[in-house]
Amino acid sequence: MSLNFPSKLLEEAVNEFAKLPGIGTKTALRLVLYLLRQDAEVSESFGNAVIRLKKEIRECKICHNLSDSDICHICSNPKREHEVICVVESIRDVMSIENTQQFRGAYHVLGGIISPMEGIGPGDLNLESLEKKVKEHKVKEIILALPTTMEGDTTNFYIYRKIKESGINITTLARGLAIGDDLEFADEITLGRSLVNRLDFESTLGGRKP
Amino acid sequence: MSLNFPSKLLEEAVNEFAKLPGIGTKTALRLVLYLLRQDAEVSESFGNAVIRLKKEIRECKICHNLSDSDICHICSNPKREHEVICVVESIRDVMSIENTQQFRGAYHVLGGIISPMEGIGPGDLNLESLEKKVKEHKVKEIILALPTTMEGDTTNFYIYRKIKESGINITTLARGLAIGDDLEFADEITLGRSLVNRLDFESTLGGRKP
Repeated sequence: MSLNFPSKLLEEAVNEFAKLPGIGTKTALRLVLYLLRQDAEVSESFGNAVIRLKKEIRECKICHNLSDSDICHICSNPKREHEVICVVESIRDVMSIENTQQFRGAYHVLGGIISPMEGIGPGDLNLESLEKKVKEHKVKEIILALPTTMEGDTTNFYIYRKIKESGINITTLARGLAIGDDLEFADEITLGRSLVNRLDFESTLGGRKP
Repeated sequence: MSLNFPSKLLEEAVNEFAKLPGIGTKTALRLVLYLLRQDAEVSESFGNAVIRLKKEIRECKICHNLSDSDICHICSNPKREHEVICVVESIRDVMSIENTQQFRGAYHVLGGIISPMEGIGPGDLNLESLEKKVKEHKVKEIILALPTTMEGDTTNFYIYRKIKESGINITTLARGLAIGDDLEFADEITLGRSLVNRLDFESTLGGRKP
């Protein structure tokens, strides 16, 4: 949609917003007009946050997570189990797993997964540093927490082949029914897997064992 | 949704985006991670456009449209008919009408419409400057182009009462079937109005008169 903008400044701001994924010109205009209705400090702090973000943010030298310093707050936390490494596709996955508050180990962010369709090969991912970590450091377990897609499986297998010689424990996230799922709505592959990998009932009771 | 951010900078940027209307934390995170994947210049020009916008943009002293200077490009254009003034609610309406390329007059942006429900009274709108314009300048016609809602009608009537004494032509946008509308899907009020205000057929032929 082409619009007749009354002002170059307005047009520029709208165009910047419209470059973002999923934001069209009309939405961009709505957001910009919203900012115009607020005090100048609002756009100022918004603009500065965006500029500082890219300028000052670091990538953790150990796990490739985003960080404000060279080593992220997880890798530098002595209370975490650094011998257990959870391999994930992206920073977003780190945040999701951290939100569960069920994991006390460390992470390794690949920055993507192998996808021949999108031209992403092993060389584009943080795989070398993972192999190095496994060789040089005391690693007890590698948890593969990649998406349950063909690309995820391919990447899992690639990593498995690279590090299986080391003899360390390689695990992957459990696949099965989601909590709250009805059997009738579960897809057959998931349901099938959850039968094959069925759990000892007592182990699911947690602390509530009689 | 609360998220465990790996970085304060990331968290701040996400929070700034999430303040925008219709953008939740998850969308904000997606947008920020997108910006992080681009070159630093992208966030730099984005941030600067937002900061400059509010700092440097002006409101046209004549029509209250947004402008890069004190008088907007419409009010300062000698080719426009400044005696025909189209009264609209917002800047967005100016842009919509300009897009039709059917209007050669000037505008007057009210900056809202009278809405007792939202606590917006005549005093909150650019109404005084409109009355002044009508009194002091040669105005031939006022076109009321406000929304066809109760608030729009109230505002129309308020303006009508204020300026009817001046004896200038007061018109409003035609209401009727939208181009491309099927009769069966038109609401009955619109359909009824379009019957009452039916047009001479020849006048709709434009240049195609036989």
